[in-house]
Amino acid sequence: MSPRRLDSRAPGFDAALRQLTAWEEELDAGVEAAVAEIIAGVRRRGDAAVLEYTARFDGHRVADARELEVAGDRLDAALSAIAPAQRDALERAAERVRDYHERQRQQSWDYRDEQGNRLGQQITPLERAGIYVPGGKASYPSSVLMNALPARVAGVDEIVMVVPAPKGELNDMVLAAARIAGVDRVFTIGGAQAVAALAHGTEAVPAVDKIVGPGNIYVATAKRQVFGRVGIDMIAGPSEILVICDGSTDPDWVAMDLFSQAEHDENAQSILLCPDPDYLEAVAESIERLLPTMERAEIIRASLAARGALVLTRDLEEAVAISNRLAPEHLELSVAEPEQLLPRVRHAGAIFMGPYTTETLGDYCAGPNHVLPTARTARFSSPLGVYDFQKRSSLIYCSEQGVQELGRVASVLARGEQLTAHARSAEMRLRDASDSGGAV
Amino acid sequence: MSPRRLDSRAPGFDAALRQLTAWEEELDAGVEAAVAEIIAGVRRRGDAAVLEYTARFDGHRVADARELEVAGDRLDAALSAIAPAQRDALERAAERVRDYHERQRQQSWDYRDEQGNRLGQQITPLERAGIYVPGGKASYPSSVLMNALPARVAGVDEIVMVVPAPKGELNDMVLAAARIAGVDRVFTIGGAQAVAALAHGTEAVPAVDKIVGPGNIYVATAKRQVFGRVGIDMIAGPSEILVICDGSTDPDWVAMDLFSQAEHDENAQSILLCPDPDYLEAVAESIERLLPTMERAEIIRASLAARGALVLTRDLEEAVAISNRLAPEHLELSVAEPEQLLPRVRHAGAIFMGPYTTETLGDYCAGPNHVLPTARTARFSSPLGVYDFQKRSSLIYCSEQGVQELGRVASVLARGEQLTAHARSAEMRLRDASDSGGAV
Repeated sequence: MSPRRLDSRAPGFDAALRQLTAWEEELDAGVEAAVAEIIAGVRRRGDAAVLEYTARFDGHRVADARELEVAGDRLDAALSAIAPAQRDALERAAERVRDYHERQRQQSWDYRDEQGNRLGQQITPLERAGIYVPGGKASYPSSVLMNALPARVAGVDEIVMVVPAPKGELNDMVLAAARIAGVDRVFTIGGAQAVAALAHGTEAVPAVDKIVGPGNIYVATAKRQVFGRVGIDMIAGPSEILVICDGSTDPDWVAMDLFSQAEHDENAQSILLCPDPDYLEAVAESIERLLPTMERAEIIRASLAARGALVLTRDLEEAVAISNRLAPEHLELSVAEPEQLLPRVRHAGAIFMGPYTTETLGDYCAGPNHVLPTARTARFSSPLGVYDFQKRSSLIYCSEQGVQELGRVASVLARGEQLTAHARSAEMRLRDASDSGGAV
Repeated sequence: MSPRRLDSRAPGFDAALRQLTAWEEELDAGVEAAVAEIIAGVRRRGDAAVLEYTARFDGHRVADARELEVAGDRLDAALSAIAPAQRDALERAAERVRDYHERQRQQSWDYRDEQGNRLGQQITPLERAGIYVPGGKASYPSSVLMNALPARVAGVDEIVMVVPAPKGELNDMVLAAARIAGVDRVFTIGGAQAVAALAHGTEAVPAVDKIVGPGNIYVATAKRQVFGRVGIDMIAGPSEILVICDGSTDPDWVAMDLFSQAEHDENAQSILLCPDPDYLEAVAESIERLLPTMERAEIIRASLAARGALVLTRDLEEAVAISNRLAPEHLELSVAEPEQLLPRVRHAGAIFMGPYTTETLGDYCAGPNHVLPTARTARFSSPLGVYDFQKRSSLIYCSEQGVQELGRVASVLARGEQLTAHARSAEMRLRDASDSGGAV
C-alpha cells in the first residue's frame, strides 16, 4: 500500500491538491432537527429531560439528576487507581502544559493621552467554563488536560466537565486527569443534552459561559446551535498533518508520523512534501514495511488511501508555499534547519521543528495545546488557549479638559450620521454648551 | 413619558429584570432557507448570481461584475467632496482609533526550557479581511473606521469592503472613511449575496479569510452559515447602555445618554441604576422635558417604553453586581469616583468612567472600538480588536536531548489512549529505541 503520488510540476497539480484536501462539513438536516428538539426539551423540562436522554442514548439510568455528578472522592480514587507511570506521565504533562499556557495570560493595560484622558483595556476571566469530554471507547485524558488547564490558568472561577458514561462506565484516566487539571465539577452526561444543560442550566447542572471540547456530530451541532447564548471553541474537522522534509530524516520516522495522524480515523489526512524523489520512494517503502505491524492498520490504510499523499515539490520554498495554501493543523518541518523556513510559514495550527519533534510530543506533553484549527481554518483561527477564557473590556475616562476636543469631533460625526441624541450628549459636556432643548 | 421604575428591594425584582433584559434571537426558518439559496447560487454561478441578486434586492443594475468595484479615484473624490469639518473629524477619529489599537497588537514569543527545547507562539496577520458596511439610509462612516482600522493595524494584506448601493447611490462619508482607513478594494454589493461572494470568491470579488461588520437579519444569517469556511465576528443584537449613577451627574446629561442608545432602534435598551430615589425622579423629569425636542422622539419613546428602566438600588455596590449580571455592551460609571467601582466590574463591553465620559465619545473617536458584545455576550467575548485579525501558531522545537524525556511521557500517555502509532513515533526517537516493527 502506498499513498497517491503527486508532482507539483505536473499539469493539474493545483486542482488535484485542492480536491484531495477539500473538506466540507455537510449540515445534516436530520441531525439539526434532532438536536434542536433535544435542546428544547432540556430548556423546557430541565433535569427530567437530561435523565431521559441519558438513559436513552447512553444506556445510563439513574433515578435522580444529582446522581449524575461525580463526587470529588471518586476523582481521588481514580487518581490512586491508575498505574504510577501513568499518573507520573499525566502530572508531568500537566506541569508542562500549565507552564506554557501561563505565558499566554494577557494583562490589563492603560495609558493617558496628551489631554489627560485615560484609555485602556481591562482583562477578566470567564466565570464558568464547560468542558465536553467524549466517553466510552475514545476516551482521551490528554484532552481533559488540554481543555481544562487553559481555563484554570486564565482564572476561570469554576470549570464544569461533562463526560458521558455509556452503561454507567467511566474511564479512570479521564477522571484522574480531571483531578490533576483542577476541574471543579464533573457530570456523567454527554451528547446534545449535555451541551444543552451547560448552555441553559438545569437544577443539577450549572449554566456556563462557554463550552469547549471535541465531540461527535450531535455535540458539534448542539454547540453551533447554542452559540451566541454561550461562547464555543471551534468546530473541529478531521485531524491533519503536513510534513515538509528535506530528505535528511529517517524515512521510518516520517512514515510513523504520517501513520500517527492516519490512525485517528479514515477521514484524517497525512501529506508529505519533499523535493527529493528518492526520499519519497524510501518513505513509501517504510510505509509498506511498517503498515502491517500497526495495531490500527486498517484505519491507517483507509485514511492514507482516501486522503494521504506523497508530493514531490520543486524545492523546500515551494513546499512551504503549498503548506500556506493548505493551512494545516499540524505542520512538521522535518528538516535540518527549520529556523530558515519558519519565517515563511504563514498559516498553521502548530509547527513542529526539526527531525526529533514528532507531532506526538505536542499532542501530549511539550506544552502547547493540542486543540488546533483544522480544515484550513488556521488562516484565521488559533490553538485553544488562555485567551479563550479571558475577555477584554475597553476603558475610557475623559477629563473635563479632554471632552472639549473629543466632544466636538464626536458631535460632527454623530450629526453626519443623523444621530442627534448622540451628538447632544457630547455637546452638553462642552464648556460653551448651549443645549437647551435642541438648539445647538 | 417615563420608563418603567424598578426597585431592587421589591419582591420579584430579579424576575422582572430578567424578563426586561431577555433577548432571544429567533432563528427564522424562512430567512435561513432564503439565505442558503442565495449562498448556493453565488457558489454555483458566481458573478452572474451576484449581479442578479444586486439588481433584484438593491435595484442596482450593472452589465458587468467589474462595474461593481469602486475605483480608487472615486474614493479620493469622496474625500474631497465632504465638508472640511467632516473630513477633519474623520481623520482625527481615525488617528485616535489607530493609536489605541496599536497597543493591542500581539507579539510572537518563545523560550527555551531546561532541556533545551524551544517553545513559543508565532503571531501572523490574516491575509484578507472582508468588511460589511450597511448602505442606504443607515450609513455609518464611523463603522468603516472601527472595522477597517484594527485589520490595518494587525497587518492584514488586503482589506475588501462591501457596501450596498441602493439604486446605485453611495454615501460620500462612507467612501471617504474607507479611503482614510486604508481599505484596499470596495465593492457595491450587499446582503447575503455579498457575504457569499466574500466567503467563496467569484471572478470579480476575492475570497477573504474573515468577514466582520454589522448588517440586517439576512447578513447576520449569511455570516452564521458561512462560519467555519471563513471566520466571522460576533452576531450583534440590539445595542444597550447601562448607566450607574451616584446622583452627582447633571440629570439632563444622563437622560441624553439614555436617549443616545434608545435612538438606534426600538429594541435598543437603556437602563439607569442609582441608589438615590430623588435623582431617579430628576432624570425622569429630564426625560419628559427633553424627549419632545428630539429628532427621533418616536423611536426613543418606543424603545424606552418597551425596554428602558430606571432602577433604584440599595447602593452602588449592588448596582455593579446587577450590571455584572447583565454584562452590558456599554457601561457608564457616571460617578464621582469611578476608579473605586472599576475593580468590581466583571463583565462589560466598554466602560465609560466619570460624568464627562458619555458613550458617544467611545462611539466615534476616543480610541477603543465601538463594535462590542451585546445581549450578555460580554460574559465571554470582547470588543472587535486587532486580535481578531491576527492568529497564533504554536512552535515546538525539541532537541535530541529534549525528546528523551518528552518522548517517554508521550509514549505512556499515547499507549494509555491506544494510539500506538503516536507512541511509536515518539519511541523511535529515543536513544535506546528498539522499534523494529512493533516490538517495543
